[in-house]
Amino acid sequence: MLIDCKSISNEIDANTKDTLSKTSVKAKLVSFAVAPDSGTISYLKSQKKKASSLGIEYEMIIATDVDELKALLKRCSKDSSVHGIFVSHPLPDKESELEIVQLVNPNKDIEGRNPNNLGMLIYGHEQFSPCTAQAVIEILERSTSIMGKKATIIGRSPTVGMPVSLMLLKRERSATVTVCHTKTRNLQAITKDSDIVVVAVGRAGFLKPEMVKEGAIVIDVGINVVEGKIVGDVDNKVQEKAWITPVPGGVGSVTTSVLMNRVALNAARSDKI
Amino acid sequence: MLIDCKSISNEIDANTKDTLSKTSVKAKLVSFAVAPDSGTISYLKSQKKKASSLGIEYEMIIATDVDELKALLKRCSKDSSVHGIFVSHPLPDKESELEIVQLVNPNKDIEGRNPNNLGMLIYGHEQFSPCTAQAVIEILERSTSIMGKKATIIGRSPTVGMPVSLMLLKRERSATVTVCHTKTRNLQAITKDSDIVVVAVGRAGFLKPEMVKEGAIVIDVGINVVEGKIVGDVDNKVQEKAWITPVPGGVGSVTTSVLMNRVALNAARSDKI
Repeated sequence: MLIDCKSISNEIDANTKDTLSKTSVKAKLVSFAVAPDSGTISYLKSQKKKASSLGIEYEMIIATDVDELKALLKRCSKDSSVHGIFVSHPLPDKESELEIVQLVNPNKDIEGRNPNNLGMLIYGHEQFSPCTAQAVIEILERSTSIMGKKATIIGRSPTVGMPVSLMLLKRERSATVTVCHTKTRNLQAITKDSDIVVVAVGRAGFLKPEMVKEGAIVIDVGINVVEGKIVGDVDNKVQEKAWITPVPGGVGSVTTSVLMNRVALNAARSDKI
Repeated sequence: MLIDCKSISNEIDANTKDTLSKTSVKAKLVSFAVAPDSGTISYLKSQKKKASSLGIEYEMIIATDVDELKALLKRCSKDSSVHGIFVSHPLPDKESELEIVQLVNPNKDIEGRNPNNLGMLIYGHEQFSPCTAQAVIEILERSTSIMGKKATIIGRSPTVGMPVSLMLLKRERSATVTVCHTKTRNLQAITKDSDIVVVAVGRAGFLKPEMVKEGAIVIDVGINVVEGKIVGDVDNKVQEKAWITPVPGGVGSVTTSVLMNRVALNAARSDKI
């Protein structure tokens, strides 16, 4: 059984268009990349297409190295015509990732990577939650009642596993949350007992049918390339017994819709300041 | 079986004294309270005693209301002679708590309540983790090997449950972490299967022996007053089958040692700037 993520994206996009129709500000997104590979370039092109379809101005800036990126980010963070900043990851220099996310103006941090925005999650404020984590929540809230459910998250990244766990613990949602990872023992016993499973491990076909409870909701955050095709972290056979999000056209698409929605909301907010 | 928290406090205090002996800066802690009750006053007095025993200058400032507190915090945050700021909680005006923690200079935020410092936990940086959460970790690291263990946290507060879960997920520790709360179903099945249980619910005797696995490590963060006596969240009988931290003289004492240690480290750092 497949969760219809297309209609969730459409719903968010409709909200984006509605927001934009009510502001006179021209919303603008700037996306950065450093020495991008062809995969990154093709992702940024699809972003551009999406932005244009919604009426958001889009600029793609390719920096030659991390130092140039830093200088460009500082300038862009102050530019009042820019309402959202996106930085393609991973960066060539992994060491500087934290420094880079701190250079993005927290109010334009549509990806939700800035430590201050992450810390706000602990206080229940999700205005700039990590965009992929937000996409997971958007899908879950439309697919099931979360309250009191057992949710297991496989993966503990700063952009998915950790923030999704905090967001599912928020009082309005109140799932009982377990976070698993490479050091977890007997993972199958944990996932098999879960109503909700979020998988973000980056390994094709990682979650097998025998690891999943009948009728569970499975959110597949994985993006893996196998023989030139994009596949998720969830074995295709899981859909015979549980609800799963497709890959491609699942979490990734909803994430792009979330990103654009934030650019629109930021533009509308700047209108009122 | 009782975990010897006294020796853990002593170890941290010894480190504090050593740090102070190597700096010429006079370390100073300022603690604030708004319209404090007798319990808060007596806690602040014990803080003063501890600071003085370690050679840390201590100032207690009582504000008449939250507005006065805000003005005082702004000044204190800029005062270079102050190396740590403590604010007694809860505040009379709960709504303003987030605003208050944001007024504390993040570099003097020895309690680790500032959103930026909380967000840094997600990136694995714990310099200013919430002090009670840090005390829990200090105790656990000296009591058991955490790697791969099942840890259950009961309670999801911004100062204990949520940060402890992030800190136990950090790669060097790598526990499998479950966070439970009032909406959790069948809590006993979860706690009974856990190697580590951290309880922070604020209900005397909440964790019963039948909820705990033989030989588990139980960290009691509760502070409750029952018939004039301070007791924790863990039923006394749990110590017949598991390791527990005493209350009083457990997490609370270690937390005070952690606080003082941070003031000393901050003073030593200011020496080098």
